[in-house]
Amino acid sequence: MAQNIYDNDEFFAGYARLPRSVEGLAGAPEWPSLRALLPDLLGAKVLDLGCGYGWFCRWAREAGAGAVLGIDVSEKMLARARADTADVAVTYQRADLESIELQREAFDLVYSSLALHYIAEPSGLIAQVYRSLVPGGSLVFSTEHPIFSGPAEPKWMLDPAGQKTWPVNNYLDEGPRSTNWLAPGVIRHHRTIGTTVNLLLRAGFAISHLEEWGPSKAQIEAQPSLADERHRPPFLIVAARKP
Amino acid sequence: MAQNIYDNDEFFAGYARLPRSVEGLAGAPEWPSLRALLPDLLGAKVLDLGCGYGWFCRWAREAGAGAVLGIDVSEKMLARARADTADVAVTYQRADLESIELQREAFDLVYSSLALHYIAEPSGLIAQVYRSLVPGGSLVFSTEHPIFSGPAEPKWMLDPAGQKTWPVNNYLDEGPRSTNWLAPGVIRHHRTIGTTVNLLLRAGFAISHLEEWGPSKAQIEAQPSLADERHRPPFLIVAARKP
Repeated sequence: MAQNIYDNDEFFAGYARLPRSVEGLAGAPEWPSLRALLPDLLGAKVLDLGCGYGWFCRWAREAGAGAVLGIDVSEKMLARARADTADVAVTYQRADLESIELQREAFDLVYSSLALHYIAEPSGLIAQVYRSLVPGGSLVFSTEHPIFSGPAEPKWMLDPAGQKTWPVNNYLDEGPRSTNWLAPGVIRHHRTIGTTVNLLLRAGFAISHLEEWGPSKAQIEAQPSLADERHRPPFLIVAARKP
Repeated sequence: MAQNIYDNDEFFAGYARLPRSVEGLAGAPEWPSLRALLPDLLGAKVLDLGCGYGWFCRWAREAGAGAVLGIDVSEKMLARARADTADVAVTYQRADLESIELQREAFDLVYSSLALHYIAEPSGLIAQVYRSLVPGGSLVFSTEHPIFSGPAEPKWMLDPAGQKTWPVNNYLDEGPRSTNWLAPGVIRHHRTIGTTVNLLLRAGFAISHLEEWGPSKAQIEAQPSLADERHRPPFLIVAARKP
């Protein structure tokens, strides 16, 4: 089973204070890029893997989705998602994404925001996602960028010329990385972009978009603290299609 | 026109001493990964963009290709390619890849090794490559990995814990980078993986494989100096297909 760090009290308390927890999708600067990749949701059946507080599930319904299922491993997250959702067409379910079984051809869109890097072996999950999509259905997800997740010491440093620099090492050695983000010993799984793309291709998906996300100039003007993210992308965003 | 650095005497002399120049394909450690992506070449019509000395052109004929066209912008490279090739089914042509026009549906495979990072605006070239392939035809190429091409000071450094580290900065700011590799002021064009993939998708290609290349354990055992390349991939290898 994947580490369920979101049910750790210290982690959950820290997560609850992040802008994306307080403000929802508007507090996630990568959200406009993800939204641009979504298909028309009118009447669509939508699955959100790692739904957290349910912000996307509720948004998808407002965007016209017919039914939305949010899945998460964290009881704490789901409790708040349920408390915040007054819509019988949105349902939540607790499951471990590493061992989940999904209904065949049940969804038009599978969405996932920053959850897949918690999965050690995603090939089973990707096969389930493929199976769960209708032909022509879409998978749209974000995950930590491997430049961000790879290094032994993931902290900004200066190069000899004094330029702010992100250290990269061990990039091609995939596997777990332990960091102290919000709580000690949070495990994320480092995978190259190539590995992620090839896993999707082998499952049968066609790649439709690949984005190494960083903030736009307008976003940096509005929030100057984002500027460093242009030096190395924090997130990878992928759209794929079941032929 | 792209910078024609290979016709610079100092660069050409340095390039001529690289293992990949002296030994050919066997001197390029990424060659086995490229070779594994090639379609069956029996009777195939093959185009090599940035053919250099013609090593791949001659190999493709040995692998069964019916006809091979090698294109390069460098007169010096082509002179040696012609001198080294005694095979009327291999032809060489001088052209600037930035403004090339290719015959429609003329090739089963378009191959390119470490040439595309010299191209400032590759969308025209990619459209030409797409047009030049038969339906079902393959594009297989390598290019510098953007982790390698991005930083202002592309040199190994140590992180605070003494770990050998590659500096990453300016990753999302695409454009020319001037380096002093073999000669001063060599211009390469830095592009993210996402940009490269999306250019291919927009041209009509389906992605079939994406590899952030690094040496295998066996290669490092045979050539220990390759070990650092596991810390950051030097090359990106892509296979795509015209549907």
